[in-house]
Amino acid sequence: MAGPIDFYFDFSSPYGYFAATRIEELAVNNGRLVNWHPVLLGVLFRTVGTAPLTTYPVKGEYAFHDFERTARFHGIPYNRPPRFPLATQAAARAMLWTAQAVGEARAIELAQAIFRAMFVDGVAIDEADEVLRIGASIGLDRDALAAGQESEPIRERLREETSQALARGVFGAPFMIVDGEPFWGFDRFNQLDAWLKGAL
Amino acid sequence: MAGPIDFYFDFSSPYGYFAATRIEELAVNNGRLVNWHPVLLGVLFRTVGTAPLTTYPVKGEYAFHDFERTARFHGIPYNRPPRFPLATQAAARAMLWTAQAVGEARAIELAQAIFRAMFVDGVAIDEADEVLRIGASIGLDRDALAAGQESEPIRERLREETSQALARGVFGAPFMIVDGEPFWGFDRFNQLDAWLKGAL
Repeated sequence: MAGPIDFYFDFSSPYGYFAATRIEELAVNNGRLVNWHPVLLGVLFRTVGTAPLTTYPVKGEYAFHDFERTARFHGIPYNRPPRFPLATQAAARAMLWTAQAVGEARAIELAQAIFRAMFVDGVAIDEADEVLRIGASIGLDRDALAAGQESEPIRERLREETSQALARGVFGAPFMIVDGEPFWGFDRFNQLDAWLKGAL
Repeated sequence: MAGPIDFYFDFSSPYGYFAATRIEELAVNNGRLVNWHPVLLGVLFRTVGTAPLTTYPVKGEYAFHDFERTARFHGIPYNRPPRFPLATQAAARAMLWTAQAVGEARAIELAQAIFRAMFVDGVAIDEADEVLRIGASIGLDRDALAAGQESEPIRERLREETSQALARGVFGAPFMIVDGEPFWGFDRFNQLDAWLKGAL
């Protein structure tokens, strides 16, 4: 099997959420695996000198409209979060701990549940307790998840994931790298698919 | 016939160029007309607090790669301009004068020739003489174009086009507004098409 798709995202990115609903299907259809990498978009933004889309005047209002319309266009459930953007350390660390302690498949399941909580159910995923509740709802051990999420090795792991993303030229989310080829944005899934089919 | 598509662009935007190669076909297929609006993207950027894509570290290098790959994906001729971005006052004024003095169809022909010169032939379209040469090459009167391009009413017209764009919430290019619905980016042509078909 050819190399995996490295998938970089932040749990506070709506386009990252859209990508998360589709990337496994895209990969399977093209005989690839996906490596999921939660990162801290705020750190990437500071390095590049950008800011969250919705903080820009004019552009920010359009962005909220585009999130909703893009979800509708692709048939993805979406409700505007009551607060946005949110800090995602708790969510990212929970996923990293789950991947390490329980397994990659459960970690992906957790990631998808966190994204749905954030972008469908209006849950404030910046609160560690909410993340633990989501973890428990998919059958993870709440106490183990709580301890893992707060542990220094997992904190360090998130810093490393973010540093490695920066080192690979990741500056936004979602960001996919496959065969060394970088793709930024859910709206590049068509080019990513063409690339995987050898048609680009 | 339903209302026109207002198409805002800057001659220094590669995605604006890609859009310019496809928008008339998209409109015709959906029974719409296109109103072409050259604007000064630098003014919009200053208002929103953004900057040309290619001036950001990391993101800028990706952008040049994406221009080339997006052109390839869509089968549009493209060569990276020797200098980029370029000032586009001369090009925009030439188009506005042609629309007013000669007619909209010739103005669109001129716009497409200027975009090709910029993004296929490596011409420095920030030089007024180059724009005049392009105008002459499609049969426009060079002396009349030169006088019109420099006239105060045409200068004022470009300022007005840019102000009106800002007032309508345009913050980037290409930007399309139809039936009051805003679409930013060549990568929203799929949503624009769905909108025109009543499927969004």
